[in-house]
Amino acid sequence: MAKKPELDDYRVPYFDGKKIKPFDLASIDTASKPFSSGAKDADRERLSELSTALDGLQEKLHAQRAHRILLILQGMDTSGKDGTVRGVFRDVDPLGLRVVPFKAPSETEAAHDFLWRVHSQVPAAGEFAIFNRSQYEDVLVPRVLQQIDSQGWQRRYRQIRDFEAMLAENGTTIVKCFLHISKDEQKVRLQARIDNPEKHWKFDPSDLDARKLWDDYRLAYEDALGATSTDIAPWYVIPADSKTHRNVMVAELMVRILQGLKLEYPPAKESLKGIKVE
Amino acid sequence: MAKKPELDDYRVPYFDGKKIKPFDLASIDTASKPFSSGAKDADRERLSELSTALDGLQEKLHAQRAHRILLILQGMDTSGKDGTVRGVFRDVDPLGLRVVPFKAPSETEAAHDFLWRVHSQVPAAGEFAIFNRSQYEDVLVPRVLQQIDSQGWQRRYRQIRDFEAMLAENGTTIVKCFLHISKDEQKVRLQARIDNPEKHWKFDPSDLDARKLWDDYRLAYEDALGATSTDIAPWYVIPADSKTHRNVMVAELMVRILQGLKLEYPPAKESLKGIKVE
Repeated sequence: MAKKPELDDYRVPYFDGKKIKPFDLASIDTASKPFSSGAKDADRERLSELSTALDGLQEKLHAQRAHRILLILQGMDTSGKDGTVRGVFRDVDPLGLRVVPFKAPSETEAAHDFLWRVHSQVPAAGEFAIFNRSQYEDVLVPRVLQQIDSQGWQRRYRQIRDFEAMLAENGTTIVKCFLHISKDEQKVRLQARIDNPEKHWKFDPSDLDARKLWDDYRLAYEDALGATSTDIAPWYVIPADSKTHRNVMVAELMVRILQGLKLEYPPAKESLKGIKVE
Repeated sequence: MAKKPELDDYRVPYFDGKKIKPFDLASIDTASKPFSSGAKDADRERLSELSTALDGLQEKLHAQRAHRILLILQGMDTSGKDGTVRGVFRDVDPLGLRVVPFKAPSETEAAHDFLWRVHSQVPAAGEFAIFNRSQYEDVLVPRVLQQIDSQGWQRRYRQIRDFEAMLAENGTTIVKCFLHISKDEQKVRLQARIDNPEKHWKFDPSDLDARKLWDDYRLAYEDALGATSTDIAPWYVIPADSKTHRNVMVAELMVRILQGLKLEYPPAKESLKGIKVE
């Protein structure tokens, strides 16, 4: 009997502090569905259970105000970052989530160090923040566009590791997901946006330019994943050609991580015992 | 046959630019359910339809990037501001909503004018922001606690009107809801928090102090509603003893307002016609 898949099988090995070992993305099949039951209906049912569980965990997180949660979503264009937010967190109280999209830096943002705009958005005590793209754009894009050299991006890897360590030491739980799709799947999804006039607003012609650089982005990702997966901020690679599978797997991961925090409602206040409101 | 209730019947008359006419909150029964079908199941069904409609409208809002929506929720403690966000917007994409809670001002916030922290959070083009409490706290709390005098709060009313006019002139649609509960209903809700140890974290002993000042807060609200309901930023009074009714009414209001904006997907891009992704 095949071994049941474990989330940790999809975790990028931790950087050893010495030599960067790029993560081989080909080692994980984008079309595989390790966390699927095999039946779409059952998967949707499971997703619904997990989303409800996340809602309960988020309420405790908020009530306790001890932990801070940061989920970082990265992936090629059309890999499903928006869809993951919607699918996984649909039952979570909108009050309890802060979704932060990072676009191309504004003039003011670009005039600062690359972590400046990111730092201002990290979660506070009791908060659950999701970064839709993140500081990682700044080691991927400038590298592929040849605006920084190897020394430059390796310095940024270190700066990111140090920054994330500081956040973790101050009570932030960091989880990073790479949504892993194939080049063929991207083709289908981009074509669908082009063929549906109502989706044109989602389509940025520069996505086609980025697609031409697919192999360069893939290499940049493999390097970045290997250089920045750490025990306090691990990367997980999510097979994401199937949207349902992607959502189930991210939901399983987040439920496990939140359950691991032993979130609890703060103790009842003895001082409230017996009080009658007038 | 009784006249069918209209949302506009619950709109606070506009300030005439001369004399403030306090709004008589006793004129609207907190326990009434003008937008209820009379059956809770049917109301819940209706709420689900409205929330789904809001989701579709929000997507167009986001795609079009022309309008900015600002919903302000105010009300006494336990009036259901959090519950409204969750109930009304449960089917809206978490990416499409930004919920901003305003607590007691921090030291830095208090060191600025009272609109400073609010201005930094207003919605951008295509955004839907919900303020859970707002600039109105700063004409209510300091007044009731006698930290400002009549001249002071009247100046703030004017400053708020000018500020909201500026936002509206720059493309922001502002809707303000006062969640209207009775003093008895608050008693029930506060007592429930006290009696359930898992809810103690929601209970702030200062809520009991505020409750003692119920009549003062009510007067302050009546005055503020009358002074700041304008055609570009109207106040609506939502009978809110029934949570289901409250949610249905706020949802009806938001759907009507968003439908009134004639939101449309941006025109299809001719330049994309016939493009085949390689």
